[in-house]
Amino acid sequence: MKNSINSYLAQYRQNLLEDVIPFWTTHSLDREKGGYFTCLDQKGKVYDTDKFVWLQGRQVWTFSMLYNRVEPREEWLEVAKHGADFLEKYGRAEDGSWYFSLTQTGKPLVQPYNIFSDCFATMAFGQLSKATQNQYYADIAKRTFDQILSRRNNPKGKWSKAVAETRPLKNFALPMILCNLSLEIEELLDSELVNQTIQACIREVMEVFYEPNSGLILENVTPDGKFSDSFEGRLLNPGHAIEAMWFIMDLGVRQNDVTLIEKAVKITLDTLEYSWDKEFGGIYYFLDLKGAPPQQLEWNQKLWWVHVETLIALLKGYLHTQNPACWEWFERVHAYTWKHFPDASHGEWFGYLDRRGDILLPLKGGKWKGCYHVPRALYVCWKTLEEINAKQMG
Amino acid sequence: MKNSINSYLAQYRQNLLEDVIPFWTTHSLDREKGGYFTCLDQKGKVYDTDKFVWLQGRQVWTFSMLYNRVEPREEWLEVAKHGADFLEKYGRAEDGSWYFSLTQTGKPLVQPYNIFSDCFATMAFGQLSKATQNQYYADIAKRTFDQILSRRNNPKGKWSKAVAETRPLKNFALPMILCNLSLEIEELLDSELVNQTIQACIREVMEVFYEPNSGLILENVTPDGKFSDSFEGRLLNPGHAIEAMWFIMDLGVRQNDVTLIEKAVKITLDTLEYSWDKEFGGIYYFLDLKGAPPQQLEWNQKLWWVHVETLIALLKGYLHTQNPACWEWFERVHAYTWKHFPDASHGEWFGYLDRRGDILLPLKGGKWKGCYHVPRALYVCWKTLEEINAKQMG
Repeated sequence: MKNSINSYLAQYRQNLLEDVIPFWTTHSLDREKGGYFTCLDQKGKVYDTDKFVWLQGRQVWTFSMLYNRVEPREEWLEVAKHGADFLEKYGRAEDGSWYFSLTQTGKPLVQPYNIFSDCFATMAFGQLSKATQNQYYADIAKRTFDQILSRRNNPKGKWSKAVAETRPLKNFALPMILCNLSLEIEELLDSELVNQTIQACIREVMEVFYEPNSGLILENVTPDGKFSDSFEGRLLNPGHAIEAMWFIMDLGVRQNDVTLIEKAVKITLDTLEYSWDKEFGGIYYFLDLKGAPPQQLEWNQKLWWVHVETLIALLKGYLHTQNPACWEWFERVHAYTWKHFPDASHGEWFGYLDRRGDILLPLKGGKWKGCYHVPRALYVCWKTLEEINAKQMG
Repeated sequence: MKNSINSYLAQYRQNLLEDVIPFWTTHSLDREKGGYFTCLDQKGKVYDTDKFVWLQGRQVWTFSMLYNRVEPREEWLEVAKHGADFLEKYGRAEDGSWYFSLTQTGKPLVQPYNIFSDCFATMAFGQLSKATQNQYYADIAKRTFDQILSRRNNPKGKWSKAVAETRPLKNFALPMILCNLSLEIEELLDSELVNQTIQACIREVMEVFYEPNSGLILENVTPDGKFSDSFEGRLLNPGHAIEAMWFIMDLGVRQNDVTLIEKAVKITLDTLEYSWDKEFGGIYYFLDLKGAPPQQLEWNQKLWWVHVETLIALLKGYLHTQNPACWEWFERVHAYTWKHFPDASHGEWFGYLDRRGDILLPLKGGKWKGCYHVPRALYVCWKTLEEINAKQMG
């Protein structure tokens, strides 16, 4: 097993540093108008110039993170600042909330209806402030975070189309991301706020959205945490649930809470068992808790981020619990992932496969896929494999 | 050919009257709370009880239309009234616009953000007023139509997330449906308004949204009818364009405009040639004019309504022009459609196939598929085949 760990470790590190990151530094910088192109075809050619704030923020975060954690390469910091400058200049509406998308030159295209634009901006400027020690960036992160908290009970605000009284539901994504976010910018926050946010988030994720009969995590529940027998209430997003589980494992480590870690590992494995495609392999994108047809026509597609988030959760699960099921599943998901997603001809990874694992869209980036899940997962898997290695040698 | 016309004719009529309509009368009526269930699984069992105003209105229209045009069966009128009563009681917000969806008991779930809810309500009450000669229904249709016209230049209103100034676009769906709608309730409208609406709609569809270099219809153009090189601007929806072409052929007949009919036939054939899947057969759901990856992950799926609308356009095209390409394509699309969509085991039609033609969702109805496209197409194809027959005998 030692040999295979070393070989995996080299594979993740090498793909990150010699393939994925160079792909984005080569193809994504808009040297003329600032910011990043993210709509890149198979070869890296730009096929659309719109700039999506989620992906601008995520790429600033990725390059800042690499600078902070891998090595302080000037080139990486420059790429991060290049995106941050564009975001800082054009990304915000008058009230400080972040637009969803901008034109190539930075004109606002889509209103700040989506609170996750603000979340990824917070991550971006928080991580960049660590790299630069620039208080101006830290202030943007902190102000944006405060605004997210003030919107958290009604994140869609006037943009919501639901008649709230009839079937009020709350969504899993925000509590899940808030706990990651509060750690990201921990040093900018009051420590009591951080602890409160973390405790609230653990409770939401592991009790409120956790559905005990199935052992799975729901995407939407009633305000008092009950199951809603509706399309939204029955919806399962396995990749989302599994991604949350490694956030929870990190919090478990921080709090030295073995029971919490073990519960997160169990949910990871149960979710994977439930959502693995027994016929063609890979993890489904959406399912319905009661087996009804989901509304999402893309439900049986295999998406890159679902698979790489699962790899992280399985390695962290194995590191912390030595549960052999984590390692067995890791090897299975690894084999599927590396067979289907990386593009040997032109570098980087495909994002969207059909149920059979055939390429659905040949793009390397678009409205939702940018420089984020793949490099983050490659980095975290590499580092987690190092820890596993160290533990086994120790 | 005479024999094959007769055999097709019998097939469409029989499937309508002996399979599809009985499926909906058997499974869709909510005898307890009123209105229709549309979320029906493969066997017709209800898997969700929400009521979507598009589909409630469309089913009222279908049963009223059958009563008006096929034969005045009391059972059909009763089904139509059953849905109309529910819609009339619960469907509208205070300002008279129509909610998007309701709970089983009629509580509003989703706000009246979608102007097509109003369009299908107009069709429903217009067609039902013909069947019943009830002025109350006629008034609802007329008032709703007037409100649609007053919203037509800003149909999304406060629900739009776009920053309108940056990249204003207008969408193809509303002018397309308005021309169908003004004919539907012609007797309730001032004849000058009908003529104006029709002329404006023909111009919009055949000149403004028509893209002369490709010969295709765009989904979105700038306010002055120019191509926008953006995701929305490059978007093609072949089924949508082809459906519009048979509306236009109907208007061509009404105006005795042979040139208009011939142009609509040419666009139908060009669109079909462009969007036919040469490898697996069937018509793609979405394409990008420049061949870039579409945002819609369902782009290569094969949807029921796309195929049945195409069958209508091809038969009407053949009836009016005797263009042999229409007949050849009709036989090809007919063969694909009848091989893949109807469910020999449990009746009615599947709606959603993957690219290869395998069943993606086994449902017979859901949020978007109800009692509408299939029965309308079966009826129109049956009647058009009768006309083709009569012409060949004459």
